[in-house]
This record gives sequence, structure tokens and C-alpha cells, in this order.
Amino acid sequence: MKQFLPGTTRLGFIGTGVMGKSMLTHCINKGYVNPTIYTRTKEKAQPLIDLGAKFVETPREVAQNSDVIICIVGYPKDVRQVILDEKDGVISGIGKGSVIIDMTTSEPSLAREISEKAAEKGAHSLDAPVSGGDIGARNGTLTVMAGGEEEVFSAVQPLLASMGKALNYMGPAGNGQHTKMSNQILIATCMIGVVEGLLYAQKAGLDVEKVLTAVSAGAANSFSLQSYAPRILKRDFNPGFYVEHFVKDMGIALKESEEMGLNLPGLKLAKQLYDQLIEQGGAKYGTQALILALEKLNNIQ
Amino acid sequence: MKQFLPGTTRLGFIGTGVMGKSMLTHCINKGYVNPTIYTRTKEKAQPLIDLGAKFVETPREVAQNSDVIICIVGYPKDVRQVILDEKDGVISGIGKGSVIIDMTTSEPSLAREISEKAAEKGAHSLDAPVSGGDIGARNGTLTVMAGGEEEVFSAVQPLLASMGKALNYMGPAGNGQHTKMSNQILIATCMIGVVEGLLYAQKAGLDVEKVLTAVSAGAANSFSLQSYAPRILKRDFNPGFYVEHFVKDMGIALKESEEMGLNLPGLKLAKQLYDQLIEQGGAKYGTQALILALEKLNNIQ
Repeated sequence: MKQFLPGTTRLGFIGTGVMGKSMLTHCINKGYVNPTIYTRTKEKAQPLIDLGAKFVETPREVAQNSDVIICIVGYPKDVRQVILDEKDGVISGIGKGSVIIDMTTSEPSLAREISEKAAEKGAHSLDAPVSGGDIGARNGTLTVMAGGEEEVFSAVQPLLASMGKALNYMGPAGNGQHTKMSNQILIATCMIGVVEGLLYAQKAGLDVEKVLTAVSAGAANSFSLQSYAPRILKRDFNPGFYVEHFVKDMGIALKESEEMGLNLPGLKLAKQLYDQLIEQGGAKYGTQALILALEKLNNIQ
Repeated sequence: MKQFLPGTTRLGFIGTGVMGKSMLTHCINKGYVNPTIYTRTKEKAQPLIDLGAKFVETPREVAQNSDVIICIVGYPKDVRQVILDEKDGVISGIGKGSVIIDMTTSEPSLAREISEKAAEKGAHSLDAPVSGGDIGARNGTLTVMAGGEEEVFSAVQPLLASMGKALNYMGPAGNGQHTKMSNQILIATCMIGVVEGLLYAQKAGLDVEKVLTAVSAGAANSFSLQSYAPRILKRDFNPGFYVEHFVKDMGIALKESEEMGLNLPGLKLAKQLYDQLIEQGGAKYGTQALILALEKLNNIQ
């Protein structure tokens, strides 16, 4: 299988939200010029159209004009619609030898289904969710966790390398999503620790900034502590990563766990606390807003 | 207040377990020679006696022969006994102007009590628990979190610097312990995430080593993941930090939280899971053995 190199590859891109916009911009800058794109709200795609992207009216048309179709949308139901819809979906227009790369964090079972449908058309697919958030997307330093055929992964490496710095091949279709689930499970409980540690420090009357300095030097250190604790102290709940998306991810992880007969009490607790946060109106905040759920639980204003 | 410098300071040391032995060795090497020491089991102190330490039969005698008395023992009840016992405790033999430094992870309220008793004798005290574990103790890179009079903290800085690299003054008596509690709360839930993330990856049939590589590069990274996940994969449950000591710490943190009217569900869950691990016989394992509790919960052999 030939590599999909800049200059000779016709790129398609579906979903130009916060993540997608940055990612596609990197692809264009690396030489994957004049991509064909589709997104629900055309206005959001305007900056990309200004960079030479051609907007079409359906995912099907994206597929008809592309050798590689990247998709990064919100929820599994969106993935299902843009990729598998029989009338307008990518799969309805895809050509032989083309590759679908779904970079949405979505369901492993859906990734396997897409892989089978693509194969029926003589095409290929990878599930390749990312971690690193908006900042990683902007800086082109995302971590990619890919499942699918290894040969296909190798063929799209130059393209993935435009967007990410750590490209991980994890095995057959669905394994990219499973790896991302493992990642989200790690983050979920870690964030509980961050907000509980901060709440304790505050309630004990400590200088919380000093506590942060002290504990960051040792065994309590984590990416979450470094990235989110300072924002929490400033009461900055702007989204790097949306609460509602994180809840979606944890929902998938819980469902998958249950299907595997796995009881993960930490993940369950995290999901409960974040569900509570959404009930309080926190869906559009960043994940660090978890402290609001703990404050409510403790009647702290 | 004068600084307690090597050469002119008579050092006392109580508790020469895994941590204490390394810490006192550093002090001796930095010039705090011929300390007076006490520990429950004299045989354990032999390597230090070989380095010039003078063994005495009671904490009281340690105090009688020392300007600064460092204590690092197991549980708050041990701290109470070696420091506050009216007949044989440090407080019964301490001289005016001397300083007690309790480096055990213990109760904030006990730290305040020691501070008051020391003041009655014209002496001083600091609560100065550490993080960094056996490796930090061995390398002299501990993080110290100190509560007490700031002037006293300054006076013993050269001594603390023999054992630790990050010396944090956190405020009045008890605040060192409170900071350590915040630290332990952070670690507790983070470790749940590590073991649940690994279990999920394993159950999903992923190559867990590859998952570790992938997730360590991004937002799921933490000291716990870096330090403990590789040991878990090797089924290495040797103690860096004993389960039974961690459970003690979480017990203190929970009690303090309750006294402050603070409900911390993540900490509670961690305590429950670690209690379960002790029931399974894991008290003398390292904290990474938490995976055994999760495996049992899921009937995984």
C-alpha cells in the first residue's frame, strides 16, 4: 500500500469544530492542500474555505472527492450519521482503496462496524482518537491512538504526523478507541483527587498556592494537577475539554466495561460527579469545573 | 534564633526504619555527626551505630542529649508515646530552646498538642512530614512540608536540607500535616485511576505496555502512572510505600475531613478499596498492589 503523501493525496475532512479546525489547518500547511470538507454549520468552516478548502453539502460528496477522509465530530451518533448513513454518509460515496480515519472519541464496537462496512466497499478505516485537547490540536502535538490494519496505519502516517507527535498503532479495529477509554479512565479519577485535594487544603485554612507548589514536587504530581489546579484557583472554568464530551467518553467507557463484565468503582464515581455537574448547568464548562460539584455536595458557595 | 549548623548542633533521632535510616545517614554525612538515637528494635539501628550514632534506651535520653530531635515513626500513637510520654518521652527530657521535628505523617491536632507542650518547656516544635518515599529518602530528595513557627523553620533549614530538596513552610503548627493530607488525597484517587485504566486495557485485549506508552505522553500522565504502572505490569508488589501506612494516612485525612464537615467521596472510595486490600492480606505490600483489590472485586485471578 502506497503512502498518502502531500501533493498527491486528495484529503477530505468532516467536522471543523475547535479540534478539527486546528487539525485541518496543520494538514493544509503541511501540503495537503485544497481539501474537500463538510461540517454541520457552514459558517464555522469559513476560515478553512479561506485557506482553499472546498465545502460540499454531504459527507458522501466528501468521500467521492477524497483518498483519505478524516472525521472528528461530537458523539457516536454523529459518527454513525456522517460515516454510515446509506444515502449521504461517507460509506455511500467512498472509492476502492480509500481510507476513513475517524478521530472522534467514540465506541470500539462502532469502529469495528465502520471497518467492516469499509471493507465491503474495498476501502479501509482506522479508529484514531487523540489526546492533548485544544492546545495539542493547535500546536500539532496530539497523541494519536490508532486501531485498524497496520498497513493502512503506515500508509497514512505522513498525514497523521501533520497533526500529532506521538502516533501509536494499537492493533485491530476498535483498539484505538479502547486505548482512548483507558486514557479517559485514568484522567477521570485523577481529576477527583485534584479537586478533593484542593478542597481539603482550602478548608484546612492552608495557602492553596503554596500547597500546590509543595505537592507538585513529589508523588502527587500529575498532568491534571499541573494543568487544571491553577485554573481552578483562578475560578477559570473555560473549556479546554468540555464536560459534556468527557461525560460522553465516560459513558462509553462504562458501557464497554459492563459489556466486558468489569466493575470500575472509580470510573463510576467520576461519572456520577460529572453527571451532577451537568445537572448544575456545567455541561459547557471545562473538566476542571468538577470542583463545582464537590462544592455543591459540601454546601460551599 | 541561631541556625542549627553541622558541627555545633547535637542531633537526636528517633525511629530508624526504612525512611529514618536513610535520612539520618544523610545528616551524618552532612556533618551532624555522633547523633543520639533511639528506636524500638536496637538491631535495626546497628548500621547507624557503626556510623558513630550513640544508642540510648529512651526518647527522654535522646532529648536530654540533643538540641534538635527528629522523629519519624509509624503511627500517631507512636508519635504520642515517643514525644509526649510523661516519663520517657522527648518532652520529659527536652531543654530550653531545643527543637522537636516530627517528620512522621500524623495528625494535625497532635502536631498542635506537641507544639503547646514544647512551648510549656521553653522549647519548640515543627510538624514536617515528607513525600518522596524510600527513594526520595535514599537520594536526599524528599519534599518537606513544615508547620510551626517560621523562625524555627529557618533555624533548622540546614538540617532539613540534608534530607530534602524542596523545603516548604506551610504556616502554623499542624499545617505541615494538613499539607501532607492534601498530598495523600491527591495520590489516593490517582492510584484508583491507574489500576482501573490498566485493568480496562488488559480486559479489552490491548497490549498494556503499548497503552502505557501511548497514555503517558498526554493528559493521563502522572507520577503514579510513571512509577507504579510498570511495577504492576511486572506483578512487583514490593513496598516503596506500605499499604498499611497509606491506609493510616487516609484514615487521618478522612477523620480530619469529617471534623471540618467535608465529604470527599473519592478519598472514601480509595480508603474502602485499600481496606479491602488489607483484608486480602496486602498490608505489607506497596501501594501499587491496589490492583489486587480491583482484581478480586472482578473475580480476576
